Amino acid sequence: MRTALVVGTGLIGTSLALALTRRGVTVHLVDQDTDAARTAASLGAGTTESPGGTVDLAIVAVPPAYVAGTLAALLRADAAHGYLDVASVKGGPRRELEALGTDPERLRRYLGTHPMAGRERSGPLAATAELFEGSPWVLTPARDTDTEVLNQALELVAHCRAVPVVMDGGAHDSAVALVSHMPQLVSTLVAARLEHADDTAVRLCGQGIRDVTRIAGSDPAMWIDILSANPGPVADLLDALGEDLGEAVRVLRLLESAEPARRAEGAQGVERLLRRGNAGRARVPGKHGSTPAAYETIAVLISDRPGELARIFADAGRAGVNIEDVRIEHATGQQAGLVQLSVAPEAASGLAAALRERGWSLRA
Amino acid sequence: MRTALVVGTGLIGTSLALALTRRGVTVHLVDQDTDAARTAASLGAGTTESPGGTVDLAIVAVPPAYVAGTLAALLRADAAHGYLDVASVKGGPRRELEALGTDPERLRRYLGTHPMAGRERSGPLAATAELFEGSPWVLTPARDTDTEVLNQALELVAHCRAVPVVMDGGAHDSAVALVSHMPQLVSTLVAARLEHADDTAVRLCGQGIRDVTRIAGSDPAMWIDILSANPGPVADLLDALGEDLGEAVRVLRLLESAEPARRAEGAQGVERLLRRGNAGRARVPGKHGSTPAAYETIAVLISDRPGELARIFADAGRAGVNIEDVRIEHATGQQAGLVQLSVAPEAASGLAAALRERGWSLRA
Repeated sequence: MRTALVVGTGLIGTSLALALTRRGVTVHLVDQDTDAARTAASLGAGTTESPGGTVDLAIVAVPPAYVAGTLAALLRADAAHGYLDVASVKGGPRRELEALGTDPERLRRYLGTHPMAGRERSGPLAATAELFEGSPWVLTPARDTDTEVLNQALELVAHCRAVPVVMDGGAHDSAVALVSHMPQLVSTLVAARLEHADDTAVRLCGQGIRDVTRIAGSDPAMWIDILSANPGPVADLLDALGEDLGEAVRVLRLLESAEPARRAEGAQGVERLLRRGNAGRARVPGKHGSTPAAYETIAVLISDRPGELARIFADAGRAGVNIEDVRIEHATGQQAGLVQLSVAPEAASGLAAALRERGWSLRA
Repeated sequence: MRTALVVGTGLIGTSLALALTRRGVTVHLVDQDTDAARTAASLGAGTTESPGGTVDLAIVAVPPAYVAGTLAALLRADAAHGYLDVASVKGGPRRELEALGTDPERLRRYLGTHPMAGRERSGPLAATAELFEGSPWVLTPARDTDTEVLNQALELVAHCRAVPVVMDGGAHDSAVALVSHMPQLVSTLVAARLEHADDTAVRLCGQGIRDVTRIAGSDPAMWIDILSANPGPVADLLDALGEDLGEAVRVLRLLESAEPARRAEGAQGVERLLRRGNAGRARVPGKHGSTPAAYETIAVLISDRPGELARIFADAGRAGVNIEDVRIEHATGQQAGLVQLSVAPEAASGLAAALRERGWSLRA
């Protein structure tokens, strides 16, 4: 790939343009908001000059509602050899392109993709060539997708140092409904229960609810777009969850009974649900995309002064131990905190000994 | 308080006994499992010798099902001046004590409490005097509770360096249903959806679902006990959540409609839910028990070698910046990672500059 056209210079478009430019690809930038395109160019993402001919690859990174229309216009103009989009739901663009009467021969040169990169901010100023590093980037070729276009996409993904995952478009949309869209709404619904809760109750929030509701703080506008593009699979999953929720209520009501036999049945039902949850949680991949490693956790008490964490990590480094994960537990109304260090099981006792030796107070 | 009797030398009983002993209180330890009591004594939590008379304070730290029976026996024996339990649900013990025909005059000397301390392991060997530091410790005096017993409890909480919170027993049980028991079951239900999911779908799990399902890995036995003691309030909350879930399904189905007016209504409904979630999330207290501070996040790319985190924290420490929270984002199939550092807004730009200067690659 030597030339590319990036349409839409927000966070995603500008980030991938930066990665391509860094690898020597000539990138032409277009955005309905010409200021955004100029900003992206000034950051080194490419040029706002028109390509003046057919480019190797056109990448459409516009808001979901404009993806199909933009692709259709580019295809009609024969703007590129291959065409990609980066929208977070894949069924829509293809269906719309077909509905717009796109020539099937040209449609072979379109490939739907979805880089699963985090976004805390938006716009070209938030862009970075490293945005996609290590994240999955889903490619959804149809049966007749041009192999050359698939290879262009793989080249783009490699330039961005992402991890390509090939999936059927429908399977992708079901998968993100399961692992992203449904959990988002459930987190929202749990957090919504706190909206009018008593202050005293809210004071008792611990790390559990803090984790469950973290993503409930997400930007509504972004999530309306995402959910609007994938409502069916998400609704189906919430329906299934609703059945399990009904079962949870049923067995909890049995636990309220005065009859020991009914209470026992309730306890069994609760256990069944909790064990299914254990089994599902065990499937969530940990670091490096592997099955979750059984890390050991070491809890260290720290004061809230600058440098305390640095000293812990320096001491762990000196002991030659790699910290796989860190969690800081927040103390209520106090300056002290608890740091949970996750390490490989074989490293745990050595690290604990090294930290104790250096005067850290460990919690068993 | 000069003498105490701790009945039940598991994690909680042994931990508070260690804290009391450290403050010069003579602590007598009893457990149905005499080995557990001896282990606690050998750790310095007190003595297994019988008090040989009335102690100042008896603390019952036995499994929930045995709390009321143990308290009733102690009250009958006039074993102490004041009596506490530490069970995680408060309505049950008092109701059972009344049902057991406890003399109301003696019942005034019982106070139900709940230390909200984390427990990853159990048993006396996991105990530490610091277990309760900075955590809320709920005290639930009844209208006629002896003030002297309340003061004994406040002294115990102070010795354990916990933060006392006085609440009505019923309000406590509703509050923990809301901020702990309901979120636990919801996390379980989301994780359960993954139990039989396709491998490819599970590979796409990101930090969002990882956070939502973290507590789904909890020990079923512990949660059966907790939920059995508080089934009514939890079931009521799940019922209310179920109604919101039904509303979520309804508005998602509208988004599937071919009619623009219905789709617009669906989008409005989704936005309403997302905004309620935003509002609820904003109430979850952050560190130091305050309302959540608006920290700024700085994202730093690191390799997976030992010492990388140490270098970051050392560099932050040198810049005089206190890291309020850390989150490591796991990259799929790659050795590189992304570390999110949360810092006070006024410290953010200085830290970013200091880290860049020292060669770190920051993600905007």
